[in-house]
This record gives sequence, structure tokens and C-alpha cells, in this order.
Amino acid sequence: MATIKAAILGFGTVGQGIYHILNEKREELKNKLGIELEVAKILVTDASRERVPGTAHLMTTSMDEVLAEPGMQVVFEAIVNEEPAFTYLKRAVEHKCHVITANKVMFAKRGLELQDLAKANGVFVGFEATTAGGVPVIKTMKNILLVNDVSRIQGVLNGTSNYILTKMRSQGWSFETALKEAQNLGYAEADPYNDISGQDAFKKLMILSALAFGEQPDWADVEVVGIDSISAEEVKEACEKGLRYRHVAEVEKLADGKVVAKVGPQLVDKEHPLYPVDDVNNAVALDTNYIGTLTLIGPGAGMYPTASVMVEDYAEIIGKRAGFVVTI
Amino acid sequence: MATIKAAILGFGTVGQGIYHILNEKREELKNKLGIELEVAKILVTDASRERVPGTAHLMTTSMDEVLAEPGMQVVFEAIVNEEPAFTYLKRAVEHKCHVITANKVMFAKRGLELQDLAKANGVFVGFEATTAGGVPVIKTMKNILLVNDVSRIQGVLNGTSNYILTKMRSQGWSFETALKEAQNLGYAEADPYNDISGQDAFKKLMILSALAFGEQPDWADVEVVGIDSISAEEVKEACEKGLRYRHVAEVEKLADGKVVAKVGPQLVDKEHPLYPVDDVNNAVALDTNYIGTLTLIGPGAGMYPTASVMVEDYAEIIGKRAGFVVTI
Repeated sequence: MATIKAAILGFGTVGQGIYHILNEKREELKNKLGIELEVAKILVTDASRERVPGTAHLMTTSMDEVLAEPGMQVVFEAIVNEEPAFTYLKRAVEHKCHVITANKVMFAKRGLELQDLAKANGVFVGFEATTAGGVPVIKTMKNILLVNDVSRIQGVLNGTSNYILTKMRSQGWSFETALKEAQNLGYAEADPYNDISGQDAFKKLMILSALAFGEQPDWADVEVVGIDSISAEEVKEACEKGLRYRHVAEVEKLADGKVVAKVGPQLVDKEHPLYPVDDVNNAVALDTNYIGTLTLIGPGAGMYPTASVMVEDYAEIIGKRAGFVVTI
Repeated sequence: MATIKAAILGFGTVGQGIYHILNEKREELKNKLGIELEVAKILVTDASRERVPGTAHLMTTSMDEVLAEPGMQVVFEAIVNEEPAFTYLKRAVEHKCHVITANKVMFAKRGLELQDLAKANGVFVGFEATTAGGVPVIKTMKNILLVNDVSRIQGVLNGTSNYILTKMRSQGWSFETALKEAQNLGYAEADPYNDISGQDAFKKLMILSALAFGEQPDWADVEVVGIDSISAEEVKEACEKGLRYRHVAEVEKLADGKVVAKVGPQLVDKEHPLYPVDDVNNAVALDTNYIGTLTLIGPGAGMYPTASVMVEDYAEIIGKRAGFVVTI
């Protein structure tokens, strides 16, 4: 059986999820793909803390060491923020490793650059996990775009803000109460700014824009409005009219070819594809020329949804016979 | 530029849709895929009737003639019923043609056989269009199944019956009135038996079962109930309780490994993923182990949605470097 080696950069929730899935599915993936994948290195900032039993010998704090490992060909990246993630992935790509990332902040800004670099080096970049967690919007769009033109994308791309808006409506909670509960449940960070301000959804939207249109609007031109100004009374009033607040991230290609985007609360009626998307779910509605409107709804975050789409990225790359060098 | 030839079997709504899309997207597909596709033959039962201007010289009533065409490597099939479709596709596969089908009746019964035959001949079978029209449930499932286990599939797989149930609720129409309107709008056939009895949804469900579980339940064991016994009063009563009737096709793998299925009206509440799926839309909700529940919603039929997913199947096959013999 051919064996190739992988590294996991970052060993928090998602990184550990990848490790668990690769272990649980080891035999099945071997049989399906004809290749055995071995996690040979795990890059962390503190190698003295063993997060998962049996992984201590895999830990390193050195990207040099990761790339020096013989047979290293796949790098899963689940770090937060642009750096050092981008530099690490750039080095991995130049080392002819396929890279699979969940890093939306890095990818929103440097994704097109990383993909160009990967192309030049004959390797693939998997980025399904950057946007909408377990909802396979990237693969669906890649496939649809072979034939269809996408004219508009509307998404609920942040589970925390959607949870808050849902509970304000269904429970009559204030924004503050709903946020507190989201934090208690582990949905929102201690600093929930990125979630409720729309900045998190904005980054994901920019990734979708680059994929659908090959470009992003100038970031400074995109109005990004949070949900913190919405009162319980406004939610109640909307509800009485049969409307719901959704925190909608929207990007559109206008007739003149210009790409415009915005993020903010919208009142949607029951005919709107995002109307039924409650709680921590994410959703993306794609307006296309041939198919019409296609909507995908599912869990937008979490260890296993996010990690599993990263392993699917890996399986897809293998399926493309991506020129792996195998050691028998 | 390399050129390969394609045939279209059946030149009704979907067959013509394929022809139009291949023409409209000719340059784009050439550029994206590096291969030019030429529709060289169109198989019909009456070759004297030119359905689309400029196609008279492509018409034939002979499958022999289709396969005798030099360079023929892709066969799109949009015929109704099992035969002669299966025999035609079997011959095409043995002739080393990739085949792409929209024929749910044939594929529900002979799909696994056709795929085995294709594998033995080193060609691909595209069947996205057999189920849920423009909703890419087949590709999504194939991808998910690389890593996830699907335990249950619930679908609204027939647009006509969903339209009828929707209008009975939203307009207060009787079953008969709603059916008549569906026929006026061209959704339902003159003989709407397959739609309203659940037989159409059943065939699609069996295709999904084969894909998810590698097997189908014994067809005789599957209870298939139509929607014609539902009264306007029952719909109204359900509505008042916050419930909706959906014609649900459902297949599940039980803990003991047995695959069981049923098709029939179900009352679903607003937490159910199929609750918001109104009008002629189709939807599929997939329960998976890692991702959770993923729902896809979109147009379940129509010339362009169905034809476009068939052309996507073609593009996907090319993307797999499926060993086309190209003529420069």
C-alpha cells in the first residue's frame, strides 16, 4: 500500500477533528483511495502540552521540521489569522505539498495569490472549510460554475449572529441575553466582535466572491453592518408582519460587470430562501442562469463538520490523481 | 484544439436543453476544459421533424449510426422509460463512450448494472439529472460519502405533488383544483399518475439509496402512498396546528444494516428541514455522522436546470482526465 504523509498546522478544535477523522476513517480511506495517509507532524506553538493522547511525538513548533519530514505531501492548516498561516502555506506549496485550509481570514485576503502559487507548483488548494463550515458551498459552486453563471450570492455565514437573531425572535430575548446564551453554549467567542459586527461573514463573502467572479470588490467599498443595534421590539414587530431578521452577506455582479457586496441585517419574508435558516445553521443561496436559485443549508461550524470537509478536500485531491509521489 | 464528438439520445425538452447549452457555452467550455465538444448525432424516433433549426442533418433513428460516427465518445441520454434506453447506453458503454443520463426509470432499476459495466469498460456514468433536477444531490453525496456516513435521506423529489400540496395550503384549493392548475402550467403530465402516486419519487429515492448504501431495499417492501387522498380540510387543519403536508421520500439504514424506505405524505413541523420547501422545488435532507444534517433546495425539473447538470456531468468527466481519445 502506498503511503503519503500529512501535517496538521494548529491543533485546536478543528485540527484535532482532522486527526480524529483520519484515525477513525483510516481503513476506509485506504480502501477507497488506494493510498494510506499518515499524520507525521503536528505544528503547535507549545509542544509540551499533549492535547490528544498518543500525539506527543508528532508535535513540533518548527515549520522547517514539518517540511523536512521525508514524504510530506499534504498540509492541513487550521490556524487563526493571516500570519504566520500564509507564510507557512506558501512554503508548503513551494515544497510541492497540497494544502487544505480552514483559515478564512488568511484566505479572504491571500486566497487568489495562494491559488496562483499552487497552480505554478502543480499542487492543489482545498478551501471548503473556510466558508460555511460543513456546508459544501465551495465544491458546489466550483461544479456549477463549469456551466452556470452565478449572478448573486446571499448567505447566512455566521452561526453566532444567526443564533442570536433566532432566539430574539423565538424567545423574545434581548440582544444581550441572546449573546450571553450563545457564549454559554460555546458558539460565540469571549470577544464576539467578529461574529456580531459582520466581519466574520464579510471574510467568507469575499472568498465566495473570488470564486464566483474571479475578483472581490474593493474591501473599503463594502458596507458591513452588525446586528447589535437591533432591539427586541424591532424583532417582535417584524415577526408580527411575518418577517424575520437575517444577517445577510450578499455579493452581486451587476449588469455592467461591477461586483458589489454588503453585509447587514435584512428583513426577509417567507418566500426568501434564507427565511427558514434558524439557529446556528449557515446557508448560501446561489442565483444562477440555468438552474435558478439553489440553496444549501447546514451546520456552519463545529469540530466535525469543519474537519470532515477538510478530509473531503484531501480525498478529492487524491481523486484527481494529483501527482502524488508514493512510497511503497 | 482537440475535438471529441457527442450524441444526444432523445430530443424533447431536456435533449434540446443540452443542445442549447452546449451551443451557448461552446467557447467557454472549450477554454475551460481544453477540449471542443461537437454534437454530431441526435437520436430520435421520427427524424423527419426538425425540432431545432439547423439540426436536421444531425438527426438519425439508428443507434448503429450514432456509434458508427468516428470520434464518438460522449452520449447524453434523455429518453423516458427503461427500454430502449438501457440497451442503447449498454452499447454506448461497450463502445467506450462516457454516458450521461436523465432517465430515472431506467437508472433506478439498472443503474448499478450500468455503472459496473462502465467501470469494466473504463468509462464514466453521469446521473446527476436523474434525481431532483437542478439540485446537485448526486455530486454532493458522492463527495460527502468520501468521508461521512449517510444514515438517512429525506426528500421532496416530485415537484408536481409538492406544488399541489403547497397550493392546497396557501390557496385553500381542493386536490382536484390544484392538480388541474399544475396541468395548466405544464408541471403535471396529462396522465399525472406517476407524480401524485409517489412512483416518480420512489424511483429517484431508489437511485439515492443505491448511491448512499450501495443497495436498494426490495422494491416490493417499500410502501408508496400518493397524495390524492388528502382533503382540503385535512390540509387546513394541519396548517392551523403549524404543520405542513409534504410528500416525503425517505430511506434509512437501520442499526442492523437493513435498508428501509417509504414514500408518502408526512406532516412536518417548522423544525423539519423539508418544511420550507414550497411550490415546484425539490429538496434533499441528508443526515450524516460528521456534518450533521445538510439540506439542498432548488428547482426539481425544467429544461435548463436538468440539462445544465448533464453538461456539468460532462465537464466533471473531462476534469477527471477520463482518458479521452482526442483528434487534433
